[in-house]
Amino acid sequence: MTTICLVDTTFARVDMASHAVEVLRSLMPDARIVRRTVPGIKDIPVEMKRMIEEFGCEGGMTFGWVGPSLVDKIAYAVYSLALQLVQLEAGIHVIDVTVHEDEAETEDELYRIAVDRARKHAENLYYLLRQPERLAEMAGTGRRQGRPDVGPITV
Amino acid sequence: MTTICLVDTTFARVDMASHAVEVLRSLMPDARIVRRTVPGIKDIPVEMKRMIEEFGCEGGMTFGWVGPSLVDKIAYAVYSLALQLVQLEAGIHVIDVTVHEDEAETEDELYRIAVDRARKHAENLYYLLRQPERLAEMAGTGRRQGRPDVGPITV
Amino acid sequence: MTTICLVDTTFARVDMASHAVEVLRSLMPDARIVRRTVPGIKDIPVEMKRMIEEFGCEGGMTFGWVGPSLVDKIAYAVYSLALQLVQLEAGIHVIDVTVHEDEAETEDELYRIAVDRARKHAENLYYLLRQPERLAEMAGTGRRQGRPDVGPITV
Amino acid sequence: MTTICLVDTTFARVDMASHAVEVLRSLMPDARIVRRTVPGIKDIPVEMKRMIEEFGCEGGMTFGWVGPSLVDKIAYAVYSLALQLVQLEAGIHVIDVTVHEDEAETEDELYRIAVDRARKHAENLYYLLRQPERLAEMAGTGRRQGRPDVGPITV
Amino acid sequence: MTTICLVDTTFARVDMASHAVEVLRSLMPDARIVRRTVPGIKDIPVEMKRMIEEFGCEGGMTFGWVGPSLVDKIAYAVYSLALQLVQLEAGIHVIDVTVHEDEAETEDELYRIAVDRARKHAENLYYLLRQPERLAEMAGTGRRQGRPDVGPITV
Repeated sequence: MTTICLVDTTFARVDMASHAVEVLRSLMPDARIVRRTVPGIKDIPVEMKRMIEEFGCEGGMTFGWVGPSLVDKIAYAVYSLALQLVQLEAGIHVIDVTVHEDEAETEDELYRIAVDRARKHAENLYYLLRQPERLAEMAGTGRRQGRPDVGPITV
Repeated sequence: MTTICLVDTTFARVDMASHAVEVLRSLMPDARIVRRTVPGIKDIPVEMKRMIEEFGCEGGMTFGWVGPSLVDKIAYAVYSLALQLVQLEAGIHVIDVTVHEDEAETEDELYRIAVDRARKHAENLYYLLRQPERLAEMAGTGRRQGRPDVGPITV
Repeated sequence: MTTICLVDTTFARVDMASHAVEVLRSLMPDARIVRRTVPGIKDIPVEMKRMIEEFGCEGGMTFGWVGPSLVDKIAYAVYSLALQLVQLEAGIHVIDVTVHEDEAETEDELYRIAVDRARKHAENLYYLLRQPERLAEMAGTGRRQGRPDVGPITV
Repeated sequence: MTTICLVDTTFARVDMASHAVEVLRSLMPDARIVRRTVPGIKDIPVEMKRMIEEFGCEGGMTFGWVGPSLVDKIAYAVYSLALQLVQLEAGIHVIDVTVHEDEAETEDELYRIAVDRARKHAENLYYLLRQPERLAEMAGTGRRQGRPDVGPITV
Repeated sequence: MTTICLVDTTFARVDMASHAVEVLRSLMPDARIVRRTVPGIKDIPVEMKRMIEEFGCEGGMTFGWVGPSLVDKIAYAVYSLALQLVQLEAGIHVIDVTVHEDEAETEDELYRIAVDRARKHAENLYYLLRQPERLAEMAGTGRRQGRPDVGPITV
């Protein structure tokens, strides 16, 4: 049985993980999905590491929400690097779904970005785990999550 | 018995740890709380690591205070990343309560931010250790520490 | 037999890896080339690490594509550092071929940069693995990938 | 016997380590103080690590000097993070005394900052090693090194 | 016999390593000097690590060349941090001789900086390995490489 581990935060303003769970359940009905919530993004890496050790996750997703200030971006960089360390140590993919508040002008748009990014990255995790050839077909084709695909540059 | 380890600094301008201790004692009267003070934030990670080794902490909190300059922010980034390493090595949560001097216009406001952040994050540590289901209920609901909650985006 | 491992992304807008494969095949017809595609650059390091463990790669190439915003650059920094860790742990060269969208004014130019950089770095990997003396001859001579060589400064 | 290890640079424009030695000798006349000099701050971390292995230092101090440019600040960030790694691996405090050239308008002021910071941090190292209760008494009281204390915020 | 390992790049526009070799040979005629060239700075750390393992280097030098853009500076930061990791793991000094294109207005000046920095840092490596007391004498005296010494601040 495949185990997939998710970590999200109480800081985020959209419940992205629920959307990801929905997609993952439809694509991998046989998978066990384990989900934990922590206060903020800097609490995610160690929680993911603990889950990997406890549940033996084959893949993971994290859901972050980042403010617009320099300090927010520093926190994101630190979080993101720590998540790389967790992945490298465990040897598994943990896809980071992060929304930055300065990505959009309105709350509506932020919401749409968050949901779309969570759902598309849940698909991506499925491809990584079960259908890597689908990703291979899309190599260099300008796929985006949270936004419409931009497509490949054709010359 | 749960052991909780706190590290704060002489650089900070508010005694945040005392507020956190008050909250932790009321929520976990059975816990052992160990507290140490170091000069500045860059001295925190190794002190926390030493305490984890000496006391076998199940969770921790750190209390930082950061000035407004680029050098201050670099120091914060370095400190924050080192604290990730400490958490990942020990496999325990250490919640970072940091106040940035450029977060507020007045000392009064800085003080309120500091106290509120310390108290709410003490609650968060309690949830992480004893009531993770409470955090799960708040996933994606825009909780803030040091500021009022912003709430979830509803569309 | 030499095994070379490539990782690219669905985010990129040019299929750089195919150009690199073409060059590598012509220079090292005896080499085994293994290629994987992941969603974005932050998924590359752990994939490369997994490939190194699975295939025993003697060298690698990665193909990234990075937007113009600060958050994009943070993601690049994090990715790049994680790739250093992968290289240092495995003790093999993994050449990073990354195109930044703000490197050029037009899509045509971005495309030319991407192809040229992928092809020249494929040559570089060949030199590293089989003809290091060729690189030694070019020491300090201002070679560029994605752009014309600038040459050495002569005084 | 307590061994304290100091590393400074030929790049710095003030001999800060001598001031620290003076303070350390008066506070810990029984301690062995070992001092080494390297060219610049990026040479400090490995030297400190070598000294820790050679002398079994219980604590350390480093003395850096950093220019005003972005490249100077990057070098400082890299140095500072590497010094965290050295501390975490050895489990000992190494207090970083760094002066940034853009901290002051005049050379006189830079000199005063450097000397004051070196002397106060030598005291801090003494407190960490021998009188941690003194630091605990000063928690959250706005102590500064290189500048006058700013004191706690009182409301 | 002392072995010294050098890594430079084809990206650089000045053959700095040859100048360093000249100085090292005159100061340490008995030393074995091993030199390798890689495409760019991000390829240096793993090459240095490989050389340390292959040749048992007692000291090293690297020669980087960095453009003026933000992406160039990120690459430098990543490279520089990875080089710290290599040094810390091996426990040896590897002096980084890097020239930034925005350090000077003209190519002539860049050339002079590059040569002077390479030669003076070769001397510094010699001091670190054979005459550390010479560095101790220069502690805090404002030595510069690539520029004239600025001297100590005297008050």
